[in-house]
Amino acid sequence: MQVIGRESVLDDCAVIPCGDTFLVASTDMLHESTDFPEGITDRQIGWMSVAVTLSDIAAMGADPWDILLAVGLDKASRLLDILRGAKECCDTFGTRFSGGDLDHHRELTLVSSGLGAARNPVRRSGSRPGDLIGIVGIPGRAQAALDGYHQYDKVLFEPWPRVREGRILARSGVTSMMDVSDGLIVSLYDLLEANPCGYEIETGRLPLIGGLPVELSRHYALTGGGDYLLLFTFPPGSPPPDEVDFTIIGKVILDQAVRVDGEIVEIEGYQHDWS
Amino acid sequence: MQVIGRESVLDDCAVIPCGDTFLVASTDMLHESTDFPEGITDRQIGWMSVAVTLSDIAAMGADPWDILLAVGLDKASRLLDILRGAKECCDTFGTRFSGGDLDHHRELTLVSSGLGAARNPVRRSGSRPGDLIGIVGIPGRAQAALDGYHQYDKVLFEPWPRVREGRILARSGVTSMMDVSDGLIVSLYDLLEANPCGYEIETGRLPLIGGLPVELSRHYALTGGGDYLLLFTFPPGSPPPDEVDFTIIGKVILDQAVRVDGEIVEIEGYQHDWS
Repeated sequence: MQVIGRESVLDDCAVIPCGDTFLVASTDMLHESTDFPEGITDRQIGWMSVAVTLSDIAAMGADPWDILLAVGLDKASRLLDILRGAKECCDTFGTRFSGGDLDHHRELTLVSSGLGAARNPVRRSGSRPGDLIGIVGIPGRAQAALDGYHQYDKVLFEPWPRVREGRILARSGVTSMMDVSDGLIVSLYDLLEANPCGYEIETGRLPLIGGLPVELSRHYALTGGGDYLLLFTFPPGSPPPDEVDFTIIGKVILDQAVRVDGEIVEIEGYQHDWS
Repeated sequence: MQVIGRESVLDDCAVIPCGDTFLVASTDMLHESTDFPEGITDRQIGWMSVAVTLSDIAAMGADPWDILLAVGLDKASRLLDILRGAKECCDTFGTRFSGGDLDHHRELTLVSSGLGAARNPVRRSGSRPGDLIGIVGIPGRAQAALDGYHQYDKVLFEPWPRVREGRILARSGVTSMMDVSDGLIVSLYDLLEANPCGYEIETGRLPLIGGLPVELSRHYALTGGGDYLLLFTFPPGSPPPDEVDFTIIGKVILDQAVRVDGEIVEIEGYQHDWS
């Protein structure tokens, strides 16, 4: 989006200096036909609409302070459960639910906007060749749920923003970070865009989804969206503390490319399909 | 909205303490079928989507810092003009356009979220009996434009948030303030809800719309939405400075009611019609 400048859109959040801290702000739009999987309840829709924004704030290593929710409501009867789910997610992550906007809409549309703060927000930029690449969580489970592995429905319906881990990673000195919401390869390309280096991961290092064939688990991990994990880089000598459960999946390389098992991969995963 | 607490939804913005200042945050959802009048251009749509949120920030007497825009886009070709209009409005009012979200939507839907700051934000609460009621701007022109008085199309299509005036009014010690976006009577009822007193206005004091019959002008002023003006109260001994062009239209009364020319009026103006 040339109009607003490249720097503004490279991170999960806008970063705003405020005294001796930084505010971070993010907004996410979800709507029924594209974003809410079949079988999701209205309470879970409310939860998800807040969780996706908290995930952006978590990816900066920030404390989430406030959530505003704009609700474009198709049926009045849905409002209370949606708000309950949104409030529940706010409460779970120590965030104020500070208000919003309410409108009538033919298609249910939710836009959550979040405000947080961090002394030292972690950006997407900052990776250095030689850094290791870590991931918090097991990628691909939301896609597995979509494809019928219903034991992972909760991952899909009630994404868990990694707020606690984001804060700890920021304090531990990770060099770059983002959330993974549209699949791992898409996220690696996002990091590539923000950095003058490249990223190489090994599929053999990826955490595997229990109960799935290994190859399918790896496929979901690389291309499946909807998980809301954290992807980060750190110097080999300064690993994150043990209280963060993470997996090292590769390393930052000089060559400006995204490589999987040594091969350059094309971008895959969620892409807007404009008509 | 019981779920999030009454206090949270009484003001135009959420108010968040931050060091020795207060942050204010607001979000507004607009979509094509309800909010964008016929004949509006995509650039104006972008402008309007930012202006409505800046108006909320102005109503707190705050400096607008940042705007995030979530765009649910029906046609890719509309994006650039919408963003241009949004950026233009941000630039005009000294606000950063800090990013947002982009999604495909059957119906064009824009949600702007704004962050601002004020040392002493003005709330809707704070009116005291004996205070005078002031308004910045001429209410009713957007509705007049909708009804065919096309000389006022610009008021309707490119609302002008009263950012400058809001700041000055806050510094001058107004006791309560809000923006008028859904008609004057609706706004007076909003003040009533936030205060233990009442509001009485005189139609003979209302500024009149040029080129319209007096009665029609008054009707639009009381019930017409879409103007984005400022409504405020102040002690008779401390009027706002002359650099703010305002009109005194009534006074704060002990009786908890909204009165127009002495008579209690029912709420009129924009209301959601739930199906």
